[in-house]
Amino acid sequence: MFAPVYLDHNATTPLHAAVREAMLPWLGERYGNASSRHEYGRAARKAIDEARAQVAAAVNAHPTEVIFTSGGSEANNLFIKGAAAVQKPGLVAVSAVEHPCVREPARQLVKSGWRFAEIAVDIEGRIDIPAFARLMADKPKLVSVMLANNETGVLQDIPALAAQVRAGGGWMHCDAVQALGKIPLDFRGLGVHGLSLSAHKIQGPLGAGALIVDKRVELAPLSAGGGQERNLRSGTENVMAIVGFGKACELAAAGIEERARRHGALRERLETGLAQMGAQIFSAAAPRLPNTSFFALAGIDGETLVGKLDRAGFAVASGSACSSANPEPSHTLMAMGVEAGLARAAIRVSLGAGSSEQDIDGFLKTLGENLASLRTLAAVAV
Amino acid sequence: MFAPVYLDHNATTPLHAAVREAMLPWLGERYGNASSRHEYGRAARKAIDEARAQVAAAVNAHPTEVIFTSGGSEANNLFIKGAAAVQKPGLVAVSAVEHPCVREPARQLVKSGWRFAEIAVDIEGRIDIPAFARLMADKPKLVSVMLANNETGVLQDIPALAAQVRAGGGWMHCDAVQALGKIPLDFRGLGVHGLSLSAHKIQGPLGAGALIVDKRVELAPLSAGGGQERNLRSGTENVMAIVGFGKACELAAAGIEERARRHGALRERLETGLAQMGAQIFSAAAPRLPNTSFFALAGIDGETLVGKLDRAGFAVASGSACSSANPEPSHTLMAMGVEAGLARAAIRVSLGAGSSEQDIDGFLKTLGENLASLRTLAAVAV
Ligand SMILES: Cc1ncc(COP(=O)(O)O)c(C=O)c1O
Ligand SMILES: Cc1ncc(COP(=O)(O)O)c(C=O)c1O
Repeated sequence: MFAPVYLDHNATTPLHAAVREAMLPWLGERYGNASSRHEYGRAARKAIDEARAQVAAAVNAHPTEVIFTSGGSEANNLFIKGAAAVQKPGLVAVSAVEHPCVREPARQLVKSGWRFAEIAVDIEGRIDIPAFARLMADKPKLVSVMLANNETGVLQDIPALAAQVRAGGGWMHCDAVQALGKIPLDFRGLGVHGLSLSAHKIQGPLGAGALIVDKRVELAPLSAGGGQERNLRSGTENVMAIVGFGKACELAAAGIEERARRHGALRERLETGLAQMGAQIFSAAAPRLPNTSFFALAGIDGETLVGKLDRAGFAVASGSACSSANPEPSHTLMAMGVEAGLARAAIRVSLGAGSSEQDIDGFLKTLGENLASLRTLAAVAV
Repeated sequence: MFAPVYLDHNATTPLHAAVREAMLPWLGERYGNASSRHEYGRAARKAIDEARAQVAAAVNAHPTEVIFTSGGSEANNLFIKGAAAVQKPGLVAVSAVEHPCVREPARQLVKSGWRFAEIAVDIEGRIDIPAFARLMADKPKLVSVMLANNETGVLQDIPALAAQVRAGGGWMHCDAVQALGKIPLDFRGLGVHGLSLSAHKIQGPLGAGALIVDKRVELAPLSAGGGQERNLRSGTENVMAIVGFGKACELAAAGIEERARRHGALRERLETGLAQMGAQIFSAAAPRLPNTSFFALAGIDGETLVGKLDRAGFAVASGSACSSANPEPSHTLMAMGVEAGLARAAIRVSLGAGSSEQDIDGFLKTLGENLASLRTLAAVAV
């Protein structure tokens, strides 16, 4: 199989070898429904409990605060829909750069009588603090702001925002799917009521995620039934994926500093090269995840370039790879006030476990070559 | 590891070796977010599409009618909550023997103005036909009846029931989680609007299931966001589990007759032995899944017996192992009018791939021994 260099780790990551090792028994001799009371069931329950402790430890939460879900999208929906369902309608506010799996459930609350507001961001993609303060005067019942953006990598000052929401009596949710494993995460320190995580972004498997939820928060489940996960997520637990998620959390939490240093240096190398080609790097002046670079080369179509890079052996993203085929320019960039033409040129490189200097140098070289031909094409077309 | 004989295949099943083979690459060199447009993403999308075709073929549906979910519970919730959300409140009716992941979401519709009715079953656990006909006069908008019960194995005449529901303008849903792979399944032949499936009951992995849904049925998703699965189930697709589910469906559909014959003969052997011990076999006079035997030995506590059998090397269930720790007597048996004391004595044996005559004979022998000691105990206690 032809294997392009993978530079799209914010979309998903390959499994860590140790995660695979932890999971393999559960594809073989180990099996069992964790609700069964015999030996098989008890072993499955024990494995889930161990994973729960690993996830909790990675984010400074208590194991009983961990609700396993099928992934980050479900965790986000669970908090937003689940919190709204147990309250009288009021104001729900989410940042203008949220992932669709936060924005959509929040927007849809309008159908049940809620008012919906988007919190503006500045040109760097940071929450507009005066706008946020004005919104707080309206006492939102539910607020969701992501810790790290999947496209720009921009980090928000969640503790400060959460304190304001709490002061107004609201509930604060934070999508930390892209932050986990890349920057230290402290559920208590963030001061949020709910925190969403996803395993497949941290060299864990697809099929597992978690909502970390303050025990004082009441939620309605998305799926009712057998009563698993403290009645918040019915359905036979995905033991294999949960076990892998636990292991991935352990590894992710342990390696953050080393990874941040390594990815930071690689990104520096990348962005130095990009600047020399005249690329505009989005959110370069904001605090960002160390592994993420989102940039544009004016006059080039991002989609076309991604296709050319792919054929030339480099897998990168044009916009948010998490959402389905959607040719609209990046919602995040539009919210930042980036001109639509430039937004359409955007390319995201997100580094991960295997990324090397060689990858970066090869990518820059290939980018340069394709750029030349794309610009010639564009010139001819005029 | 001490491995008791596993006779609890209705709770969950070990992975088929060929399913594991199909999944393993996705725990290693293959990975990718199916929404990504590069080589990795396209390969993941292709694998999902192949699995979708496999699942569709196993139940005589069209691939576009397959909505992948995280499992059977989610599929049931998706249909019931999703169908209710797009309609004006009316009457929702479910059989009295449904799994909690059908019963609970249906019951909870009362909060949004729906009327809820349970459809009675007779002493064998079959839908009470006159009661069903009376209910139809009330024109329910939503009806859900399972094809095969997880505890008794009893089969319902879904085509006949669905025709009545359709005639009244309602939508008919069917939980076929326990039927898949055990009896032939024909989505079109059943005439239902929605059909729920789960991978881990058919030697597939935990973490995948599907709702087969008629394209004329509009549903609201449980989770909104990236728009995956025709906007009915947002969240990065669990490629590994979906691939395994596809393979498991292919194997399940191919082996039905042989399995039915084999399991039917084993169950006959089991139930002959049980009858000699004076066991009462529930639903013995009804059409049942060939692999399932639900029985009681009067005066014995089912929970205690399951514990003793477990220690003696046989893993069986006392009630529905799909729901969490719940010491209530089986809801199914109560609905059938079984006396609570006898219901508390219930034990479920469910056969699967590895089950053998030796397992049955060993189980009967061990059961007999434990019975003697439990009855002595009970006699002493009196
Ligand atoms: C910021 C963010 N939130 C949520 C999600 C959704 O998580 P999952 O893919 O586990 O559904 C993603 C990516 O898909 C993401 O980047
Ligand atoms: C009849 C029936 N429906 C639904 C389910 C739930 O499916 P899952 O375990 O995939 O959530 C089960 C078992 O758990 C079942 O036996």
